[in-house]
This record gives sequence, structure tokens and C-alpha cells, in this order.
Amino acid sequence: MTFTRLLSVALKSCKGQSRFLSTCKPLSVTKKTLTIDNMNPNVKEMEFAVRGPIVIRGGQLEKDLEKGAQKPFNSIVKANIGDAHDMEQKPITFIRQVLACVAYPELLQSMAIPEDVKEHAKTVLHDCGGHSAGAYTPSAGIECIRKHCAEYISRRDGLPCNYENIVLTAGATEGIRNILKLFVNQKSPKKVGIMIPIPQYPLYSATLDEFGLGQVRYYLDEKNNWGLNIEECEKALEAAKDEYIVKAICVINPGNPAGQVLTRNNIEEVIRFAHKNNLFILADEVYQDNIHDKNSRFFSFKKVITDMGGEYKDQELASFYSVSKGYMGECGLRCGYTEVLNMDPEVFKMMVKMMSSKLCASSLGQAALDSAVNPPKPGEPSYALWLKEKTGILESMRERARLVQEAYGSLEGIECSAIQGALYAFPKLHLPPKAIAAAAEKNVEADFFYCMEMLEATGICTVPGSGFGQEAGTYHFSGLQRKLICSFRTTILPQTHLMKEMLERFKPFHEKFMRKYS
Amino acid sequence: MTFTRLLSVALKSCKGQSRFLSTCKPLSVTKKTLTIDNMNPNVKEMEFAVRGPIVIRGGQLEKDLEKGAQKPFNSIVKANIGDAHDMEQKPITFIRQVLACVAYPELLQSMAIPEDVKEHAKTVLHDCGGHSAGAYTPSAGIECIRKHCAEYISRRDGLPCNYENIVLTAGATEGIRNILKLFVNQKSPKKVGIMIPIPQYPLYSATLDEFGLGQVRYYLDEKNNWGLNIEECEKALEAAKDEYIVKAICVINPGNPAGQVLTRNNIEEVIRFAHKNNLFILADEVYQDNIHDKNSRFFSFKKVITDMGGEYKDQELASFYSVSKGYMGECGLRCGYTEVLNMDPEVFKMMVKMMSSKLCASSLGQAALDSAVNPPKPGEPSYALWLKEKTGILESMRERARLVQEAYGSLEGIECSAIQGALYAFPKLHLPPKAIAAAAEKNVEADFFYCMEMLEATGICTVPGSGFGQEAGTYHFSGLQRKLICSFRTTILPQTHLMKEMLERFKPFHEKFMRKYS
Repeated sequence: MTFTRLLSVALKSCKGQSRFLSTCKPLSVTKKTLTIDNMNPNVKEMEFAVRGPIVIRGGQLEKDLEKGAQKPFNSIVKANIGDAHDMEQKPITFIRQVLACVAYPELLQSMAIPEDVKEHAKTVLHDCGGHSAGAYTPSAGIECIRKHCAEYISRRDGLPCNYENIVLTAGATEGIRNILKLFVNQKSPKKVGIMIPIPQYPLYSATLDEFGLGQVRYYLDEKNNWGLNIEECEKALEAAKDEYIVKAICVINPGNPAGQVLTRNNIEEVIRFAHKNNLFILADEVYQDNIHDKNSRFFSFKKVITDMGGEYKDQELASFYSVSKGYMGECGLRCGYTEVLNMDPEVFKMMVKMMSSKLCASSLGQAALDSAVNPPKPGEPSYALWLKEKTGILESMRERARLVQEAYGSLEGIECSAIQGALYAFPKLHLPPKAIAAAAEKNVEADFFYCMEMLEATGICTVPGSGFGQEAGTYHFSGLQRKLICSFRTTILPQTHLMKEMLERFKPFHEKFMRKYS
Repeated sequence: MTFTRLLSVALKSCKGQSRFLSTCKPLSVTKKTLTIDNMNPNVKEMEFAVRGPIVIRGGQLEKDLEKGAQKPFNSIVKANIGDAHDMEQKPITFIRQVLACVAYPELLQSMAIPEDVKEHAKTVLHDCGGHSAGAYTPSAGIECIRKHCAEYISRRDGLPCNYENIVLTAGATEGIRNILKLFVNQKSPKKVGIMIPIPQYPLYSATLDEFGLGQVRYYLDEKNNWGLNIEECEKALEAAKDEYIVKAICVINPGNPAGQVLTRNNIEEVIRFAHKNNLFILADEVYQDNIHDKNSRFFSFKKVITDMGGEYKDQELASFYSVSKGYMGECGLRCGYTEVLNMDPEVFKMMVKMMSSKLCASSLGQAALDSAVNPPKPGEPSYALWLKEKTGILESMRERARLVQEAYGSLEGIECSAIQGALYAFPKLHLPPKAIAAAAEKNVEADFFYCMEMLEATGICTVPGSGFGQEAGTYHFSGLQRKLICSFRTTILPQTHLMKEMLERFKPFHEKFMRKYS
């Protein structure tokens, strides 16, 4: 498939995929019962850019390389998704030892496993049916783990926390889907709308599309380091009122993809805005451990709501946490929690009933979550190693965030806000008019064009800003910095070495691209 | 809460739960944004009996016992769900050793782990991003595991199998949900209906309700050992045509909850029926390893479709498999596969895109699936133990199926079809009119009444037949036999001992109940 053909295909794919796919030759000419024309239109139209056409092309290139194809690069860098382990981050030993013991309790007899790991595994196994990870867990999760989550939240916020408001889910993704599902109401006189930030992690837009909920987009303020501008929220809400009953606002803090950390003052503004407009708050706080900027600090929405008190004390909230992010990076294990605050208890019961029909989140994922929220304590045999590994990863991420920003600073045509937190930066591309025209000629977005050229020239797989949403007329991309932020080991040498390799691929591409189209 | 109050509550719960819950006092009097009145009506109305009111009451009783409450029994038997490990079935050593190595690759250096286990784990890790279970897997699953599933299917059916038609999911549950989701179409001129057996595993009814799809119920033929009667299917389809566009038929084989195994002839009839009426077939084949009756044999729908050939060769099919059932019983690990046959390739791509927004199934669940479909081979170090454990579990299940049937045969008022396969029996209760009247007075279904009295008298937690659906005027229950089938160790002594304990609890209850109401 040529690049031009691929771009054209990808564009069609971006615009609903059905047209692209209807050009494929079906395997059989028989009339099908389930076809692209009569299937779920919501599923057909939904988009998920993080695993979109550029990633698919990256996969093809990788297979080509394996078959010996000659390319200007020798490997594909999958920088499209926040997947630390795929980028060679090493797992936390404590988490993996606990998992091994829970999976294979014979190891509880092993001299090679520290005693506190064994105690930890025994506690989890005690609350498993038949003391086995093979039993279904309760729909809301293993009880002691829900309690450990509550203790973690309590330590974090300096506030009491009731474990009965916590449910464990297959990643934060499933938690967010559960909450959004509650808002679906075909019988509502107007379609239900949910406010989402732009740029956003595309799970939100994809899920809203899948569920038939309306996207009410509010734009983050790039000039103000991607802060949340309440005037913009008011405007977006007002504009949506004709079409939608707007019921909730999603906030991602620290931000994905833009890496901002909201100030406490900004969070208070959001809470006042939500309260005034009767909006439920969905707080995606999965990057709460990932603060790189020494002047930034993570405040949970729950803490700020509670501290504000007064009329705000009843504000409805769901907060999401995941073992996929933080210093753990255990994306493949699929576990997170949802904590609700002030949710109607009748609605909460209905949510747990709905979860029960899916049975439960993975028991081993839950055990990993337990190890994250209930880590070794000072004096315990695993503490020193755990602390060293955790600190090493977080410090390395901080260092890499700084290096990335410096690297971008040295390049013409790229501008990047401070990477305060999370695992991402979202640099702005000042593309020359000729590049925009060249993209238009190929019928693709200019940032898609840039990212696809980057992939073909360097093997670096990124996500164009259009996949996250962006203000009209602006262009961004996300991904490269993930490799830079996520992929390096915690010692200095490989970090520098790999950083150099990345820049050796990226810088010449960018400079050549800018020259070609200026 | 008194028994009468509980029954009344439970009945309300059975009829939509909203009425029950709206009698609860909300935690706060503030007006909520998301309330029981404006939340998703589909979620509110859906039912999932396997984790319904009797199970909730069982959980309460268990806590009461822990606090020292005096009851006529000293433990709760959670026989409501097919959860082998919760019922003390031991895990297969090979599976757990592989999981431990994948989770904690340091074990690849251990002398205590057999070499073939290590090779198996290395193969899985090789296909994980960064060689870590912490990386997201591809949306459709880890490639080598999809290939091993294809090889397993190929060995089973004696037919070629393309791994690209296989996707890995968080249990068969998620696979079934993915396929059903494709049929949702709000823009369809008539509501889309899906044929489901009655009795059925309530995942189907719950999911159809959640997705807003119509339940088109066809009754299994109890007199014909719960076989599938095509005249009944034709009748059900015809009756549904005014209200629905019927697009698919779900078949559970071996059956849940009735334990039947369809004959090859019966499967052919279903295929002819589906083909004639343009129905997609969803074949829930998660109990394919659980055949107890020596005269029964499992035939996959895929094999029968392929063997029939001719006009049937293009029949659309999705087949589901799970690590939760079979001899593995690894419910908590959440993995299964879906194999599609003749699915429109454009629709398949849309399904994978939809799956990608949920990212992936648990990597460790996938590793367990790999160990199930790609077990040790003769001559390998783990083979002998694996075979002994597998055979022991399956033989014990077979023996227990026989014992249960004999036990029921000795009791007045109970009639039970042959338990040919799966993990369940679904005995028919011939309840005396006085019992039915007593239930009616308490405003509950007669079998719910019977099961709740059983729980209160014996601590045995079951599911009333009404939770699975049953023909009007008949009463059944499911659960006890699961304990009998699933809960015993594979040596003779505890089996007999535990069987006796169960019967010591159940028989006197049943006899007393029958005497009381006759």
C-alpha cells in the first residue's frame, strides 16, 4: 500500500471508517445477516485514535522489518500509547512477587520470597473464594482490597474514606464506562450530553459515541498551560443546551494528552461551575502519582470538595485510579478503582448490579492494585527495594520530562507547554502553509500528514492532535515524548543513549520536513 | 430483616428493583443530578439472578455466622454460581506455574519450576510488549495465544482454523457482550430481537436488557431432556416478528442451567433453522470439556456447519470459550476467546475497533487461556501431573453428576433430567398447592419461596428457576448440584463425606417442606 493510498484510506477511516471498509472485498458474496450497513451505527462511527490508522501502519512496518525490508530505521517506536512496560520500564519487584504468590501459593513456602510479600499475598488470598485467585471475586471487588484503597485515599487526602463507596474495575477504562453508562437514557426528552475537555483522551469521545451520549466539548486553554477556563465551560454549556440535557463534566487531572496539573484554585472553580449547573463530576485522576513540576501539586477533587464544604459538600463525584499509570505502569493487568462521593445510593446499587452481570474484574489485577495502594512499610523487608524502584522511576520520568522540553525548545516550528504531570506532552506544530496545502491535497489533516511522514521516515509511531481534538486551525501531536518520558531505564547511561537515538531520528526528520515545505 | 420482609423486598427487586430501592432512605436529601428516576432505565430494569436477592441474603447470613449468630447450620454454601475454586476445586498446577513465571520472570531461573513451564512462559512473554505482562496487549489478544487457540480448535474439530478469526476477551461474558453490542441499532425501523433459550444463563437476558435489544424466548423441551425443539423455535420467531427484526439465535451447549448436551442431529436442525431465517448463531460452548454422560458427545457448531457444507457453509457464527469452566475453573482470571465464522470482515474490524477502546483483556488471564488451549504434551516434564489433575477433576465431576441424580431420584417431589454435561442440573419441583399458595400470599414466586426457605434452614444458597426463566406453571431450582458437582476434592473420602454433609442438610429440609405444605 503506498503512502498516498494509506493516507487516503486513513482519512476515510477517520471519518467513520465505513466508507474505507466498504471498499474492501468481502470474503463471501452471500448476503450476510450482520453487515456494515445494518450493524450498530454507534460502534461504526466511534473513533479511537490511540490505536488508529497510524498505529496500524506502524504494525505493518514492524512486520516488514522482521521480514528483512530495508527502511531508514531498524525498529518501530510505539509511542502512541502510555504503555510504560512496552517502553522497557521495569516492573516493581514487590508487585510482581505478590502476584506470583497469589497465582501460585506454593511460593509461600519459598525462601526466596520476602516475608512481607507472603503476608500481603496471604491477606489477599484470605478474601478470595476458596482462597484461590481462580474464584470469581465479589462484583465490587475483593473486600480487603477495597479497604486498602480506602486507606490509601484517606492517607492521600487526610480525610476519612468509606470502602463501601469504592468498586474495583478492569482498569480505569471500565470504571469510566460504568459511570457514563448510568447517564444513558433513550427515554429522555433531549439527548443526554456530557462535557469533555478538548484535547481529551479519546476513550471519552469513543465511549460517548458508543453509548449514544452527546459530546459537549470545552476547550482547554493552551495559552494558560492547558488550564481549565470556566468562561469557556460556561460558553460550551450554554451552546449545548438546545440540543442536550447536560448532566456531567469530565476532567482529566493531571492531563492527558497535554500533561497539565490543575491548580487548587482551578479545581475549586470547576466545582463551583459543576455545582451551579447541577453537573456530576467525573475526575480522571489516574496520573495522580505523576507530578514532574516542582511547583505543581496534585489535589483530588474529593479533597477540594470536602474542604470547600458548605453548599458544595453534596457535590456528586466519581474519581478514577489505575495501576496502569503512576510508577507501576501495569497496563496489561487491567485494574483500577472508582470512588464515588455523594452518589445516590440507589443508583450505586444499580451500578453494582450492572457490574455483577459482567461478574468481576481480574483477581490478579485486583492483587496488583492492592500492592499499589498498600505498599511495603518502613522496616518491612521489601521496603528499601520498593522505595528505590518507585523513586527511581518517578525521578527518571521527571528528568525525562525536562529533557524533552529542552529538546523541543531547540527546534523551529515546535512549541511545548510545561510538562507538569502525567506521561505526555502535547507540542504545538507551527506548520508552514505549504505543508498544510500538501496535506489538504492528500485529503488529510495536516497533523496526521506530519505524523505519518514521521512514521515513514523514522519509525516513530505517534498520534496526531486531531485524534484528541484540538482548536480549529491548530496542529499538535502526541507520542514522541512518551518514548522520551517512558522508555528509558533508570540509570543515566541508557537514558542518555536512548534519548540520543530518538533525537537522532526525530530532529533531522523535523528539520527536513520544515525545509521541504517552507 | 425478617424472612417475610426479605421475601417481599426480593420480589420487588425481581420486578425491576427500582420499587424496592425507592423505599430506601437516601443518604442525603439534596436533589441529585443522577437519580434512580432519571438514570439509565435499561440498567434499572435489568436482572441478574445468579447474584440476586438470595445470594445477598446468603452474604448477610455468612456475616451473622461470623459474628457468632446461632443458626441451624455452621456455614453458607454458595451454590448459586458455577465457581469451582470457590467450592474448593484445586487449580491445575501447570496453569498456575506458568502464571507465576509470566508475572515474575525471576522464576525462570528457579530449579523448582519445570522446564516446559518455563518454555511456555517465555513464549508468552516474547509476544508481550517489552516482554512484560504489564504492557497492554493487542486489542484482539496476544498473537501467539490466538494462534494456540486456533491450533486447539483445529485439533478439536479436525478442521483448519485461522487465528485471525479469534479474539481474546475478559471471560466469555465480554465476548458475548461484544457480539450482542454489534446488533444494537436505534435507527432500525423495528427493535432488533435476539432469540435466547429458556431456561438460560441470565447474562443473556441482562445484557439484552442493558443494550435495549429484545428478548425472543424459545423454550427448551424438558420432556426431551431439555433438547432444542425447532417447532418451538419457529413458533417463537413467528410470534416475535410483529415487534422485532430477529437477527440472531443464542444456543448454550452444553446447557446452562439444565446440563443437557445437544445431539449432532439437533445442532444440524438449529443450523438449518438459523440459515433459513437469516439468523446469526451465538454458540456458547464454554462447557465443551464438561461432558459427563458416556452417551453424549460435544460437537462444535463450527464443525457441524463445516461438515454440512453446501448452502450452510456461509452460516454466520460466533463461538465462545472460557477458562472459567472446563476442568480449569479459573473464573477469577477473566479470560476467554471468541471465534467468528463467516462474519462480515468489515463488521469484524469494527468489533476490534470497539474492543480497542477498552484496550485489552488481562495479560495474565490470556496467559491462563494459553495454558488451557496449549497444555503440556506427552513426554514433557509437566505432562503426567497435568493429566492426573485434569482427569481427576473431570472424572470426579462425572461421578458427582451421577451421585446427584441418584440423590434426587430418592426424594419425593423432585424430578431431574439426566446431567449430561456442564456443571449444573435443573431439577423440577413438584410443589404442593399449599406451598404455591403460601408463596403467593407472600407475593413471591413459588420456587423463590422454596429456595429462600432452603437457605434459611440449611445455609445452601441456590438460584430459583424463575431467575433463568421457565415455562409458566413449572418450578425449578439450580445450585445445590453445583456444590455436589463442583465442591468435592478428587479423592473418594472427602467426596463421600461432603456429599453426606450436603444431603444431611438438604434432604431433611426438603422432606419437612413437603410435609408442611402437603
